[in-house]
Amino acid sequence: MRILVINPNSTASMTARIAAAARAAAAPGTEIEAANPSDGPVSIEGRYDEAFAVPGLLRLVRAGERRGIDGYVIACADDIGLAAAREIARGPVVGHTEAAALLAGRIAGGFSIVTTLSRSLPVFHELMQRYGTAPLCRSVRASDIPVLELENPASDARARLSREIELAVREDGAEAILLGCAGMVDLAAELSADFGLPVIDGVSAAVKLVEALVGLGLATAKAGALAWPRVKDYKGAFADDAPTTAG
Amino acid sequence: MRILVINPNSTASMTARIAAAARAAAAPGTEIEAANPSDGPVSIEGRYDEAFAVPGLLRLVRAGERRGIDGYVIACADDIGLAAAREIARGPVVGHTEAAALLAGRIAGGFSIVTTLSRSLPVFHELMQRYGTAPLCRSVRASDIPVLELENPASDARARLSREIELAVREDGAEAILLGCAGMVDLAAELSADFGLPVIDGVSAAVKLVEALVGLGLATAKAGALAWPRVKDYKGAFADDAPTTAG
Amino acid sequence: MRILVINPNSTASMTARIAAAARAAAAPGTEIEAANPSDGPVSIEGRYDEAFAVPGLLRLVRAGERRGIDGYVIACADDIGLAAAREIARGPVVGHTEAAALLAGRIAGGFSIVTTLSRSLPVFHELMQRYGTAPLCRSVRASDIPVLELENPASDARARLSREIELAVREDGAEAILLGCAGMVDLAAELSADFGLPVIDGVSAAVKLVEALVGLGLATAKAGALAWPRVKDYKGAFADDAPTTAG
Amino acid sequence: MRILVINPNSTASMTARIAAAARAAAAPGTEIEAANPSDGPVSIEGRYDEAFAVPGLLRLVRAGERRGIDGYVIACADDIGLAAAREIARGPVVGHTEAAALLAGRIAGGFSIVTTLSRSLPVFHELMQRYGTAPLCRSVRASDIPVLELENPASDARARLSREIELAVREDGAEAILLGCAGMVDLAAELSADFGLPVIDGVSAAVKLVEALVGLGLATAKAGALAWPRVKDYKGAFADDAPTTAG
Amino acid sequence: MRILVINPNSTASMTARIAAAARAAAAPGTEIEAANPSDGPVSIEGRYDEAFAVPGLLRLVRAGERRGIDGYVIACADDIGLAAAREIARGPVVGHTEAAALLAGRIAGGFSIVTTLSRSLPVFHELMQRYGTAPLCRSVRASDIPVLELENPASDARARLSREIELAVREDGAEAILLGCAGMVDLAAELSADFGLPVIDGVSAAVKLVEALVGLGLATAKAGALAWPRVKDYKGAFADDAPTTAG
Amino acid sequence: MRILVINPNSTASMTARIAAAARAAAAPGTEIEAANPSDGPVSIEGRYDEAFAVPGLLRLVRAGERRGIDGYVIACADDIGLAAAREIARGPVVGHTEAAALLAGRIAGGFSIVTTLSRSLPVFHELMQRYGTAPLCRSVRASDIPVLELENPASDARARLSREIELAVREDGAEAILLGCAGMVDLAAELSADFGLPVIDGVSAAVKLVEALVGLGLATAKAGALAWPRVKDYKGAFADDAPTTAG
Repeated sequence: MRILVINPNSTASMTARIAAAARAAAAPGTEIEAANPSDGPVSIEGRYDEAFAVPGLLRLVRAGERRGIDGYVIACADDIGLAAAREIARGPVVGHTEAAALLAGRIAGGFSIVTTLSRSLPVFHELMQRYGTAPLCRSVRASDIPVLELENPASDARARLSREIELAVREDGAEAILLGCAGMVDLAAELSADFGLPVIDGVSAAVKLVEALVGLGLATAKAGALAWPRVKDYKGAFADDAPTTAG
Repeated sequence: MRILVINPNSTASMTARIAAAARAAAAPGTEIEAANPSDGPVSIEGRYDEAFAVPGLLRLVRAGERRGIDGYVIACADDIGLAAAREIARGPVVGHTEAAALLAGRIAGGFSIVTTLSRSLPVFHELMQRYGTAPLCRSVRASDIPVLELENPASDARARLSREIELAVREDGAEAILLGCAGMVDLAAELSADFGLPVIDGVSAAVKLVEALVGLGLATAKAGALAWPRVKDYKGAFADDAPTTAG
Repeated sequence: MRILVINPNSTASMTARIAAAARAAAAPGTEIEAANPSDGPVSIEGRYDEAFAVPGLLRLVRAGERRGIDGYVIACADDIGLAAAREIARGPVVGHTEAAALLAGRIAGGFSIVTTLSRSLPVFHELMQRYGTAPLCRSVRASDIPVLELENPASDARARLSREIELAVREDGAEAILLGCAGMVDLAAELSADFGLPVIDGVSAAVKLVEALVGLGLATAKAGALAWPRVKDYKGAFADDAPTTAG
Repeated sequence: MRILVINPNSTASMTARIAAAARAAAAPGTEIEAANPSDGPVSIEGRYDEAFAVPGLLRLVRAGERRGIDGYVIACADDIGLAAAREIARGPVVGHTEAAALLAGRIAGGFSIVTTLSRSLPVFHELMQRYGTAPLCRSVRASDIPVLELENPASDARARLSREIELAVREDGAEAILLGCAGMVDLAAELSADFGLPVIDGVSAAVKLVEALVGLGLATAKAGALAWPRVKDYKGAFADDAPTTAG
Repeated sequence: MRILVINPNSTASMTARIAAAARAAAAPGTEIEAANPSDGPVSIEGRYDEAFAVPGLLRLVRAGERRGIDGYVIACADDIGLAAAREIARGPVVGHTEAAALLAGRIAGGFSIVTTLSRSLPVFHELMQRYGTAPLCRSVRASDIPVLELENPASDARARLSREIELAVREDGAEAILLGCAGMVDLAAELSADFGLPVIDGVSAAVKLVEALVGLGLATAKAGALAWPRVKDYKGAFADDAPTTAG
Repeated sequence: MRILVINPNSTASMTARIAAAARAAAAPGTEIEAANPSDGPVSIEGRYDEAFAVPGLLRLVRAGERRGIDGYVIACADDIGLAAAREIARGPVVGHTEAAALLAGRIAGGFSIVTTLSRSLPVFHELMQRYGTAPLCRSVRASDIPVLELENPASDARARLSREIELAVREDGAEAILLGCAGMVDLAAELSADFGLPVIDGVSAAVKLVEALVGLGLATAKAGALAWPRVKDYKGAFADDAPTTAG
């Protein structure tokens, strides 16, 4: 099975780290491809950034469909563009944080999310509501690390993350931790060892959920909310993005 | 005060009808401008369409900020791009369906939404959850009219809408009706007269809420969730959309 | 348009301050009348007080109907008597806190309410549930100022309010503030300037929502929950309050 | 123990029937008193009626406190005035529908409420939300019987109620029935026999809950939300209703 | 009326204390029997313990049915086995914590639960959700006392409980306290006197609710969710527990 | 990796069918073991049956731990004994319906559950609440097939299921179907082909989720709600089930 892991920001070094983690998580028969849009924000830290990352993400899905990709991972903790991507994909599309939260609920009585900037806190609260995991979410904590600082080996990002994890465990009753940014993808194992509790990286989690769905022969339902887009014209710069005959 | 009403699809005839309704609703001192993106889908009927309508919508807001617009109406019943637009606007930004639902709750014990296609039903259920108006929403009914049929005077759109309104009143206990597409903007008065109950068009409702907010001197809060986007690079075709120094 | 702003307690000096604020908020074509019952509690600080304020409030609405009032504001942060007033009013009736909360949700990701006494905290939590705004409400804080202290220029009410606003911003993540008592009506502008964030007074907010509804030609739905009261006898001291032929 | 059962409407014949049912439900050691206000509506069928029934209800509670009543039942299915009455009562105060719903949840997986007029449906939905019993409430059905028709032995009220109960069982999955008006107080036993399922009358249920609370020595908590009203002046016709020194 | 109070752990000394409290709470005409399983855990402190306590609990109910017991109390704060017991009982079955929470809601605006071990906190949060009392539950606090320490008169259990009650009142706004373990059954009166607020023991509360239900002639609904178990074979050690002809 | 699939009823023929389906779903490196308790009910159709199935289920988990099982599937649609099993397992434990519902939410906008008997409907509604998937669950439909009828090739079970699926699609808007009994495990593929939409069998789904969790190295969190049971005595017939030193 071929899974396309999409980093929706345009920073290739982050895509490379995400790809490595995805490959490490993948089962023997799984082939991981990874890509990011060439257009759009270098990091996604708010709703405005999201809006300019989604078109490139969707173009990658469309291209994936043409070459027979079996399933997709959206490797951004804000889980952007999920519903739109599902409309144009035959196979399953799984988001970073939905995967992490749903797996966490199977092995822990409650978890905390540790993310980058405080402006993202409402994004995670909204996702927890949407996925029905709000009762499991003990807290969302920001470490005040901009996303691209996670690309910088000299930063103190890991120390700051550790501080928030410690507080989540001691003050909020977290029994497991979710990493709230795809740029943290390679920290899960070490932090899990440091703290002696499950630390879940959403990229790896989403890879495994796509494997599960594809393994079961389950594709995206095409009747109702996730049906193919209606065929119509798109004007101007987006003309080539217009939906054409479905399937 | 100057309000920019943005029709986020690229169909200028619909923008014209929306502008006329907005002007009819506006108070004496209010100047209504109306615009639609030149790029993007001719109608918005699903999440994929939404993704390619939002960038153009945001560019219109940015341009509006440069020329001192006081507030914005997003004239699409799916309320797309609201949070992103709020990040880049000084003044208030109000959506079609949030305005209609919030006003309806002041004058009715419960309402129904009558929209175009059944694929949009989950969009409205999600909006009602987000706005906290789900307990007031007796039903969402689709009339199976594609959006652009509403531009066609020869269509039977009004008859089909009337049929669904009748069912909403009789079977679902609707005490007021919300029109679930900005393309229905000019039908509210007639349908209200036909059925003897409040029929609320979200474009007009949003214009009045923007007037209320601007009239009170209330601007978008710039600390927290709706803060200015962080300054950063956007690559490729979206390079010019990158956030620059705030304010 | 004529709007009647009702202060449901019997303290005329507070009514005068409320009237001044309402006039300052009103649009050019709006005529503000203000009144309070001659019977009932001098301040409303609990459910028992509420019970004896509502009859006078409703009599003012009935008198307003007889002289053609277009819409009503209930200028009490507990939003008392709203449903009953809607049953007997043709035009819209809007409450203090519902107006403030609904406007706040358009311009902020979350808000806190700062009120008078701690015994009112559950009232506000219940209102937030009823209006669906609980997810936006970061906290409700009491400043331990009795309502009538707000009439006393020598009190330290403003300092105590400021202290709670500061805590709401720093500890609870408030992005906007709602004033939790109609007696605070004239403090919004100063506090907003002090703290650099939106501070919303519910009296002004409700005036603007009534203007919006009346401006759209929207009246209270008279089928269902808010229908005219059934004609019947009331005995004894309330005989004159009995509902008579509707409309 | 002495329990005062208050019918908050001013129809003495209904009070007499309620008193008889309360006495039939009471334990040997319980003395039932029953009363209704001499002022106010002859029946309660909406929020406006409620507003003019509550003052008389509260006066009966205050008089009850003076003569040492141990607990109170509010014998109106709308559960009006509960919080206000609790502020001025030492002993417990229990409402009709809260008692019925809470007892029903101990013996059935789900119940339906059968009430009088359709305008009351939203009242019951709001009560179910408030008591946390909404997930157990399969439906609320109106039988279109005005309250005072229940006083008329020649009416077809029982037949209409039976029709709605049958539908609640067959279509809504009701496993028990709550009578949605205190005027139905004497029908529970017969309807239960007819349908072979629990039919719960809220007056009897509330009497038993007051007996339970008083029997346990539990009084109304006087710190916080239900504290004694603050001492203050009430003006005009309500001057004598002003709260005086607590306890 | 005969009520069987079941302590589902196998510690007879705790059963004796529970029986004494139940008898103190019972009305004159009520005969209290008390029992515990001879098989199973000596205390219940988690889901695994629960699983091995429930079979013995159900055998006691079946034996109770054979000798004509009128109603049952499950004297364990985790309210284990309630739905299963209701399937096999004609009369009502009431749990410890459901009874305490539902009575508390009639006399207080909010309460806190003080229990034994922190591992039980999620159990109580889940129960509050199930009973719809979560909005009333200000906090659940663990005193870190193992259940059987409550049997030891030399322990400092009461001091530790008092410390948590003090914090619940001061920091969480508790207006009443629920004791979160049936082993605390004899502390309610003293703690209530110490703190001057209602302290509710669930054993006594459940006895009174069973008395209320039986007194009203209300039995468990046998259509739907709580119907008699279907007749079938149970194999091996549980063969004698197989359901036989209903009633 | 070795996964133990536990059919908690005592019918070996059903265990065999479940094992076959689990093996068909498993990845190449996965070894499936399957077992059922020798003690307890031959089918699980209510809470009383559940209570006598859980002890045997837990004994199978304990035995599994002793021989190094990596993860567990509870192959019963009621998801019984999950939390207790998690307390005593190092590796992950996943239930039938939680797995199906969580996977369905990734590929469909809404689903319906088709189960055996109507008495199970509240069980599924409660599970949907617990997992946060209630907003996705369009309906739960009973086909009135007793569980063991599914073992009988001559029964009309499949036809009855098909009828309910058809209604779920047409009347309830189901976009995917969840099979609501582990005994339906071998019908998913055929029904999916018949109806052209995803039909999800919970046994297979749970196998894939356990594979995902074990593949990620994620074990059950042992701090907090799912910690090892406290060491203590169990009396009588359950003496051997007492928890011993953890790990």
